[in-house]
Amino acid sequence: MRFLKGHGTENDFVILPDPDNELEVSAALVATVCDRRTGLGADGVLHVVRTKLAPEVAALAGEAEWFMDYRNADGSMAEMCGNGARVFARYLVDAGLAAPGELPVATRGGVKRVRLEREGDVSVEMGPPTLLGESRTSVAGHDYTGLCVDMGNPHLACLIGEPVAQLDLTHQPGFDTSDFPAGVNIELINVVGPRRVVMRVFERGSGETRSCGTGAVASVVAAAHLAGESLGTWTVEVLGGTLTVTLEKDTTYLAGPAVLVASGEFLLP
Amino acid sequence: MRFLKGHGTENDFVILPDPDNELEVSAALVATVCDRRTGLGADGVLHVVRTKLAPEVAALAGEAEWFMDYRNADGSMAEMCGNGARVFARYLVDAGLAAPGELPVATRGGVKRVRLEREGDVSVEMGPPTLLGESRTSVAGHDYTGLCVDMGNPHLACLIGEPVAQLDLTHQPGFDTSDFPAGVNIELINVVGPRRVVMRVFERGSGETRSCGTGAVASVVAAAHLAGESLGTWTVEVLGGTLTVTLEKDTTYLAGPAVLVASGEFLLP
Repeated sequence: MRFLKGHGTENDFVILPDPDNELEVSAALVATVCDRRTGLGADGVLHVVRTKLAPEVAALAGEAEWFMDYRNADGSMAEMCGNGARVFARYLVDAGLAAPGELPVATRGGVKRVRLEREGDVSVEMGPPTLLGESRTSVAGHDYTGLCVDMGNPHLACLIGEPVAQLDLTHQPGFDTSDFPAGVNIELINVVGPRRVVMRVFERGSGETRSCGTGAVASVVAAAHLAGESLGTWTVEVLGGTLTVTLEKDTTYLAGPAVLVASGEFLLP
Repeated sequence: MRFLKGHGTENDFVILPDPDNELEVSAALVATVCDRRTGLGADGVLHVVRTKLAPEVAALAGEAEWFMDYRNADGSMAEMCGNGARVFARYLVDAGLAAPGELPVATRGGVKRVRLEREGDVSVEMGPPTLLGESRTSVAGHDYTGLCVDMGNPHLACLIGEPVAQLDLTHQPGFDTSDFPAGVNIELINVVGPRRVVMRVFERGSGETRSCGTGAVASVVAAAHLAGESLGTWTVEVLGGTLTVTLEKDTTYLAGPAVLVASGEFLLP
């Protein structure tokens, strides 16, 4: 089975090119491929299929030639992954399946616009955020207040005074389950300059990660809100690198590096 | 750059075939390749070179055609790696570079005998252990006594009463730095049947790992010593699978699965 591997700010993916939707990508196969010791190792799989040949999104075939069939590392399906969409677009252009520039990508969350050049950053439209008031978290015995931001998935974005580099995020932070009955992604944020933040993130179901696309957008939405701003471009430093988030009137964009590091054959067990 | 990936009881390796010793395998390249998010991800690199073309071991060319140039994930050189030698031999036979059966492999620790069939387990000669008396460790506030075993590298093998599955090995266990001035690999062991042990291991410089070949041998040496035995075959259950250790009069053998999971091209940054 042919594969490529790539990452965006150290959020890493195995790409499975399958234009004609011939592979049976079971949850067990995804989990095998994503195992970091017995497989290739990744945060998720980007299964690349022509939209018109994927029944669940075939209605989008007129808008987007390619479907990003995204799977989490445990094999479960997901609607969308911002860093994944950037790596997905990088693959399509590198493989000659799409032209550089603006590119629509079909996902289970609808068609997303991605923009890239042959070199440099890739940006992806992340859609509008929804601000939902305040809630609280506790991290290693300290309580913080943050803003609830829905990006299709739930976030609690907390601007704090202590340097985030010193936080202990080994364990699940506490949160209010009446505000977040299905769990929440928690961002801890320092404002370190004009429209510049440092973020660490504890992802629902994964623990602390090196980067989180929706978390970067949620962090900027919260920081801008507290600064009395609603438009503009912000820089977000995460453990895995640097992202740029742009707030527009009706949508948001996430930009950053997206690179391919290997290609080959996976030897099925 | 061409690569393969394989593992033995979840101790995983990137194999870099380079028969004519043409690659410049710098510490930086190894660290890049072994990074689990921005590279391929592995515990170490097996650089495959014809012995006669590797100046540091060329004197062994009459005894072993192939040199296992082993590197740790941080890029440093190592003399030998038991699980690595088993995966190395699996690669040579799969690639048609060696015949199944007994195969000598040159290492910085001398020539090691490896035995394998096309299917099934691979065994490697690990050399004689040296028993060096007792020392102590403390794991999450509990003190244990163990036997010091030198396998070319230092081990402290502790048979304990508590189930090893319940130990917290998140942090570096304490040890006596006057007994181990250069650090030590620490094994915690339960005897669970006749010549059968369960082992967890905290490796010097790595933390807890899924498997450790020299640690498995050291554990059996300690368990056999306490049972008043010096010869025989033992089973060792580790987090990553099951190994078999055989004690002979003047040497030891480590056997277990060794599989290749992928092959491809690494795209140099």
